[in-house]
Amino acid sequence: MTVMTLLHPGAMGAAVGRQAVSAGNTVLWVGSGRSEATRRRAVDAGLAERPDLASALAESEVVLSICPPAYAEDVAREVAGFTGVYVEANAIAPERSRRIAGLLPSARVVDGGIIGGPPQRAGSTRLYLSGDAAGVPDLFAGTALDVIVLPGEVGVASALKIAYAAYQKTTWALAAVSHALAAAHGVGSHLLVEAERLHARPLLQTDAYPDMAARGWRWAPEMLEAAATLRAAGLPDGLALGSADTMRRWDPAKDRPDLPLDDILKLLALGVSTGL
Amino acid sequence: MTVMTLLHPGAMGAAVGRQAVSAGNTVLWVGSGRSEATRRRAVDAGLAERPDLASALAESEVVLSICPPAYAEDVAREVAGFTGVYVEANAIAPERSRRIAGLLPSARVVDGGIIGGPPQRAGSTRLYLSGDAAGVPDLFAGTALDVIVLPGEVGVASALKIAYAAYQKTTWALAAVSHALAAAHGVGSHLLVEAERLHARPLLQTDAYPDMAARGWRWAPEMLEAAATLRAAGLPDGLALGSADTMRRWDPAKDRPDLPLDDILKLLALGVSTGL
Repeated sequence: MTVMTLLHPGAMGAAVGRQAVSAGNTVLWVGSGRSEATRRRAVDAGLAERPDLASALAESEVVLSICPPAYAEDVAREVAGFTGVYVEANAIAPERSRRIAGLLPSARVVDGGIIGGPPQRAGSTRLYLSGDAAGVPDLFAGTALDVIVLPGEVGVASALKIAYAAYQKTTWALAAVSHALAAAHGVGSHLLVEAERLHARPLLQTDAYPDMAARGWRWAPEMLEAAATLRAAGLPDGLALGSADTMRRWDPAKDRPDLPLDDILKLLALGVSTGL
Repeated sequence: MTVMTLLHPGAMGAAVGRQAVSAGNTVLWVGSGRSEATRRRAVDAGLAERPDLASALAESEVVLSICPPAYAEDVAREVAGFTGVYVEANAIAPERSRRIAGLLPSARVVDGGIIGGPPQRAGSTRLYLSGDAAGVPDLFAGTALDVIVLPGEVGVASALKIAYAAYQKTTWALAAVSHALAAAHGVGSHLLVEAERLHARPLLQTDAYPDMAARGWRWAPEMLEAAATLRAAGLPDGLALGSADTMRRWDPAKDRPDLPLDDILKLLALGVSTGL
């Protein structure tokens, strides 16, 4: 069984730590300077307190970083010189994961991305890993946290997490903006009726992208109309403008629903030639 | 039965015209200067050709404008002086619908918004109307096009259409961008597995918005990470930046999942005081 340090026990971190404890590991945390809420979560999750980071690290083979994205590099700097396994499990850009690996040349840095809520029951949450992840899946064997090792280097797990989060979280922002617009015009209940009819699952139905891309030339101007409508209501127009900008990249696919998915995706990247 | 002029028989316009014909109306179109594809669609839909707009209008009680949004005002200007009912059924901002009403002071302008594909079978497509819509629903009685009159003036139907389209169409752009990012990092198949687990229906589940808004302060920085990740892959970052900007407006709802939905929506509008 392994001794690890968890930095820091927020809602997600504490729940992940609890799973590691349930697998028989010892999970340390450092209480000094942390809030009462953090202390309660750590105690509740069965974590063992150490008075300072140095004593926690001295005992630990593994450090698990689960913190707000803005602090990911600060946390890494605090453990400079650590020689064990450092799991960088935050929702950060792949480039930042690689930068963090550079900050910890003596450690084996493993990139991670958590998808799902704080793990509580089997099937609720996945920890994706990339880089040399040997040994990390064992830390959570048989727990509610499913660990999946991806092919590829540090950064790949972060990229998957970001690709998923950008869709999943943005759909809520997008929907709320539409409801705010409908409410401003007194038609919120009608928008809900239309929402009931809507069963598309865009992240899953990749087969439909060529059809959508073929209509991008018509959709982009409609999104500019949406941006104007949102501005007139004092609502944020960035999502609609971003939508128009994305759809415009599909101009070469105009009325060509026969193009392969691979080309449709490549058209979105500037500077990538598809030969169209 | 009514004589109407349809401007112009694109894929959507021709299908709507066909429904009006099936209800026993005479639907005119003007062939001069139109493409062979338009002619085929018009003939196929049972529309009757007139050599020029003046002769079509002279016979018509109703004009139905269904065209690319960019041409909506040009089409209205062409029928200046028309004294019948003008149905502005394009996907345009409410402000443009009102401007178009101003261009046609002798006509009774009815605002419209079409949701769904070209009507083919019952239940597939709704034509929402606002303003003085008297008589327009009868034109499609018993057809595959459901006509719904909204409360409110010219602009309301357009607002509903735009609110719906901004969500529905943008989710496809958003999903394609995420898949392009995942593909660039070699994890497209893993993103599909996560997509299979995703059953949220954000436009329908308005009850969840307070929970989401309470997390906005954490989500906004994650969306900035997404924007950086997308830029690094040459992909458009506008949707992620727009997402961050939207979520930031929820800062006052930080960790307050108890706020009412109404306040959550109002927070998105600049200059709207919620008393928070």
